Amino acid sequence: MRAVVYREPNRVELADVPRPELEADTDAIVRVRLAGICGTDLHVISGDFSGAKPGMVLGHEFVGEVVEIGAAVKRFRVKDSVMSSDFTACGRCHWCDEGDHWQCGERAFFGTGTAFGPALSGAQAEYVRVPHADTTLGELPAWCSQEAGLLMADNLATGWVATERAAVGAGDCVVVIGGGTVGQLTALSAQAMAAGIVIVVEPSESRRDFSRSQGSLAVHPDDALTMVQRLTGGVGADAVLEAVGSNGPMDLAMALVRPRGRVVSVGAHAAEKWSFPVAKAFSSELTVGFAIGNAIRLRGRLFRLLAGGAFDPTVVIDGRGRLEDAPRLYRELGAQRILKAVLTL
Amino acid sequence: MRAVVYREPNRVELADVPRPELEADTDAIVRVRLAGICGTDLHVISGDFSGAKPGMVLGHEFVGEVVEIGAAVKRFRVKDSVMSSDFTACGRCHWCDEGDHWQCGERAFFGTGTAFGPALSGAQAEYVRVPHADTTLGELPAWCSQEAGLLMADNLATGWVATERAAVGAGDCVVVIGGGTVGQLTALSAQAMAAGIVIVVEPSESRRDFSRSQGSLAVHPDDALTMVQRLTGGVGADAVLEAVGSNGPMDLAMALVRPRGRVVSVGAHAAEKWSFPVAKAFSSELTVGFAIGNAIRLRGRLFRLLAGGAFDPTVVIDGRGRLEDAPRLYRELGAQRILKAVLTL
Amino acid sequence: MRAVVYREPNRVELADVPRPELEADTDAIVRVRLAGICGTDLHVISGDFSGAKPGMVLGHEFVGEVVEIGAAVKRFRVKDSVMSSDFTACGRCHWCDEGDHWQCGERAFFGTGTAFGPALSGAQAEYVRVPHADTTLGELPAWCSQEAGLLMADNLATGWVATERAAVGAGDCVVVIGGGTVGQLTALSAQAMAAGIVIVVEPSESRRDFSRSQGSLAVHPDDALTMVQRLTGGVGADAVLEAVGSNGPMDLAMALVRPRGRVVSVGAHAAEKWSFPVAKAFSSELTVGFAIGNAIRLRGRLFRLLAGGAFDPTVVIDGRGRLEDAPRLYRELGAQRILKAVLTL
Amino acid sequence: MRAVVYREPNRVELADVPRPELEADTDAIVRVRLAGICGTDLHVISGDFSGAKPGMVLGHEFVGEVVEIGAAVKRFRVKDSVMSSDFTACGRCHWCDEGDHWQCGERAFFGTGTAFGPALSGAQAEYVRVPHADTTLGELPAWCSQEAGLLMADNLATGWVATERAAVGAGDCVVVIGGGTVGQLTALSAQAMAAGIVIVVEPSESRRDFSRSQGSLAVHPDDALTMVQRLTGGVGADAVLEAVGSNGPMDLAMALVRPRGRVVSVGAHAAEKWSFPVAKAFSSELTVGFAIGNAIRLRGRLFRLLAGGAFDPTVVIDGRGRLEDAPRLYRELGAQRILKAVLTL
Repeated sequence: MRAVVYREPNRVELADVPRPELEADTDAIVRVRLAGICGTDLHVISGDFSGAKPGMVLGHEFVGEVVEIGAAVKRFRVKDSVMSSDFTACGRCHWCDEGDHWQCGERAFFGTGTAFGPALSGAQAEYVRVPHADTTLGELPAWCSQEAGLLMADNLATGWVATERAAVGAGDCVVVIGGGTVGQLTALSAQAMAAGIVIVVEPSESRRDFSRSQGSLAVHPDDALTMVQRLTGGVGADAVLEAVGSNGPMDLAMALVRPRGRVVSVGAHAAEKWSFPVAKAFSSELTVGFAIGNAIRLRGRLFRLLAGGAFDPTVVIDGRGRLEDAPRLYRELGAQRILKAVLTL
Repeated sequence: MRAVVYREPNRVELADVPRPELEADTDAIVRVRLAGICGTDLHVISGDFSGAKPGMVLGHEFVGEVVEIGAAVKRFRVKDSVMSSDFTACGRCHWCDEGDHWQCGERAFFGTGTAFGPALSGAQAEYVRVPHADTTLGELPAWCSQEAGLLMADNLATGWVATERAAVGAGDCVVVIGGGTVGQLTALSAQAMAAGIVIVVEPSESRRDFSRSQGSLAVHPDDALTMVQRLTGGVGADAVLEAVGSNGPMDLAMALVRPRGRVVSVGAHAAEKWSFPVAKAFSSELTVGFAIGNAIRLRGRLFRLLAGGAFDPTVVIDGRGRLEDAPRLYRELGAQRILKAVLTL
Repeated sequence: MRAVVYREPNRVELADVPRPELEADTDAIVRVRLAGICGTDLHVISGDFSGAKPGMVLGHEFVGEVVEIGAAVKRFRVKDSVMSSDFTACGRCHWCDEGDHWQCGERAFFGTGTAFGPALSGAQAEYVRVPHADTTLGELPAWCSQEAGLLMADNLATGWVATERAAVGAGDCVVVIGGGTVGQLTALSAQAMAAGIVIVVEPSESRRDFSRSQGSLAVHPDDALTMVQRLTGGVGADAVLEAVGSNGPMDLAMALVRPRGRVVSVGAHAAEKWSFPVAKAFSSELTVGFAIGNAIRLRGRLFRLLAGGAFDPTVVIDGRGRLEDAPRLYRELGAQRILKAVLTL
Repeated sequence: MRAVVYREPNRVELADVPRPELEADTDAIVRVRLAGICGTDLHVISGDFSGAKPGMVLGHEFVGEVVEIGAAVKRFRVKDSVMSSDFTACGRCHWCDEGDHWQCGERAFFGTGTAFGPALSGAQAEYVRVPHADTTLGELPAWCSQEAGLLMADNLATGWVATERAAVGAGDCVVVIGGGTVGQLTALSAQAMAAGIVIVVEPSESRRDFSRSQGSLAVHPDDALTMVQRLTGGVGADAVLEAVGSNGPMDLAMALVRPRGRVVSVGAHAAEKWSFPVAKAFSSELTVGFAIGNAIRLRGRLFRLLAGGAFDPTVVIDGRGRLEDAPRLYRELGAQRILKAVLTL
């Protein structure tokens, strides 16, 4: 079958690879219809993550149809339309019972090497093997667009979990740091939860313009403190949601949050250490949390949210193509000329 | 001063009454600028509530300016613009500490007789005396319209508390029973909390049309069960919010709610007893709660909500006039020709 | 194999019945080691529930060892020690995803006829077939006694869920209505949650004595109002947990609870209707909830609770015997001469 | 009047100072009956905090009787027995409305200089002036010992808030870092909330012995990781409560907590920065919070907790004396020969 594979640092290409087969009776094989390209994929192909070997099929966001199932798969049948989590979980352990599927010992992450578990071939391909299909996959309802279902795998689950972990409430002043796909979906999630003011902090002017077109305020990082102080009468933001994953944005988050406020980071952190302002955190009684999108736990709520028309997550998709367009779309994403790319198969 | 007074069952009139004076050092006198007429006032003048004596000044919703304060009032000064709760609370007892101001032993309700505490002269008048001003009154911010501030006293606090007590969450299917002012504001509150589907159940066609114009679905009570079953695939509503206060609507609520769902009633109940479907409530693990709007506890959150533009509560106001128009506006409200009336002084 | 079967109203007997076999690949067969007799079983044999046919094997509480598994069972192996929920759930539907396993369409209740789902043979027998074993069964840890594991199936899960649903908090005044097994375990659960005062309301003097021996206060229903008023300075109980399931106790609960307090009923209600004090519920802003013990959702937390030594649930067991003692133990339970009986196989 | 005053670094002495007088109509004067000496006082007299001037009266924990009140004080009368928060708050601002009294602009901290607000004379004296008495003071119920009331001002409120902020639940494995007064009360609070295992991490053997005598496990910091890993099967603690306030203990907390667990620090942090393990915090989805005891918000719940006999906080008091014994008791506390000292006046 045809697939997008990693060749060498910063080079992806189309290749013919063997079609995956069932390996366990809890597996399913899915015919991919849409596959996303994510900021995380850019990290993978630049060699930031361990275990990315030449020839590896990329991609962890997809929707499609079930074409084959193992004998122990109960929830799905052949021809079912499905969306997927970007990682697998067994559905049968202590962590899965508690809804903490990310901590499951059977976690594997599609198409990213070995950074988040054992290697698992990716979804930018005609077919993908899905371990623990009863848990990893979810039904894609007929009313839901394929693009919306694809975003749930990762970007939307991540944006939403930021607002959930921060317990964003009615009328809260919410700052989102980072105007990439996750940051934009975080801002839309916060608006949906009746946040009073949502401010996206982002250096790129075009991304700030996009945030404004979606109903948020937007500001350059250099001007963020002034704006937040002014809009909150000097108090600070109720919640700051960090969607970048590095230390500078974390420092900014700590500067923007109000006493007793909450900072939640959903950006993937590469640095080991961060110089944390502990004296301020204590005297202001801050809470700092880290969260990872979990489409398995969240898809039920997210489908209800989309069914009600709270917002349309697909507004972030501005790069579309066929499988053979993947190399070009990777380049455009890397150059920040587009926000989010989706491949149709 | 001029005031709207109760004369005899279903008759109100304009009268000259003595201007109120400070009685305790925690009192304030407020020059009323806007006073609302509420469905509760219709109950008062029809004699449903105890203690409504001829000559009593009506009204429990108002905004205005502070013109006099007792020596122990610390939060306000003369000329401050204020909104008010529709009832008083001391701010210094066990109940007030816990945010349960409605249960405060110093509770008195403006302009309704003795049904909810000792008699306290109403606010459809040029001046009103406000006991425990530091707690009962709230600052009316410059950016907030007088009409929005007035609605917080009662109708908006009541509509909001229904969604809060029912813990309406993202994507929930929410049914609101009753399309009066409180019901309409309940529906808008539920929308603001990212409810997925909001359905207003109301016999009056014009009120259903109004609900639809505000973004909710609407249905006649006779057709509600069919609609809810169809829209939820036979499961039922996550939350049913009753904004009428009688037993028929409560029965309907119990029929519409899903297993493990929540029914919350914010309608004022005149009947002593209700024939409760206990077997169904048990097997479906239902929760049934009753809540009363508490503008003292909620005004902070409500102002943040309005500041963020979640919705405009003043859309419900469709009857406006001067103090001398009160008798006519009472009649129009009683005939359901209008939804909500406000007097300018 | 030998089993306790229902013969005719109020008569049970030992009988030889066929040993159960696997019927689906998600089934397991368990060799029963302990089986409990529950107040619910008394209802079954008196004919209160539908579908109890002569010859039916009784019993819904058990622990034992897995002796056979279907091909799709992943969580257990032959020889594993297990506890069980008293009802089955598929683990793969919308309700199970949300932790509401009781509402699962695959629910069946062991040994009670058809009142709570399709008939499913009971556990007072040498072997029992367990549908959806991966979800219905839980591991019985080596440190946990078989008796404690058995109580989790029903009585302890039910007692605990009452305190959970009522959100019993530190220092709360908690009233438990009913001093049967569930009531006693409810009282112990409330104590574990740092309730300030726990009062068991129970007509039987010996059961009141038992409550007192376990650290609660106890009172006859006739004296309950006086005691609660006195102990709370006239305010009322923060939470009233009803563990009987009939209307008189519900009325008492509504009389004992404080304004803004919570009533939670975990007793199985046979009556269709209850004359509900709606005017009081409104003016006091009460919440009334119904909950059903769900050992599938709760067993993780309950095992952690018991591991920490919060309390020993087995103190309620005062009737023990072999399978052949079942007829006698049913009689002693029916006469309230014992609180809880357990059969060893 | 006689008072304990700061003379120079590490020297306190008894002195005659002017009796305080009412300065505002919201003030009260309290005749002190018991005054505590706290670990924070040791920081004050060693010069760690700003604004500690020679001659300043020390002490921020006390109970006593009201002897004089300003005209605007409504909640108390002369001769009332009262306990106090260790800091003042106005009770009339946005922060106080939300229960965040520590952030109140009128905050002043008794007897500690200017580190936490404007200087306010302390309570190790015959009389103390209490600003904003209606909010700062609480009634001391007749059933409550003076020593228990005194501990609520600071140490007990701080220990309790750690368990509250960490949402310690039934069966949780809880680690408390630091076996001083606050740490010991934190461990007792966690036990009261039905924590499964409570482990106090403390280098002093005598303090570990004390923890064990109160029902917790105890371990030297060097052995903590091994013990927690063993007791939790390698998973880690559900919650780690840091009661020291320095970076080493924070690092240990991050090593001991399980994935998705919570670290809460209630120790006062002197260091500006802490090298935070951000990569681990992200991949394990940790939450790190900081909290300050707030006796104003918490006293209602704490009195209910003590009334129910959850635990006796006064077990930590092992140094008692008269006012003239203060210099000796400061020395014994500084040498860790005692855990907590209380002066009787």
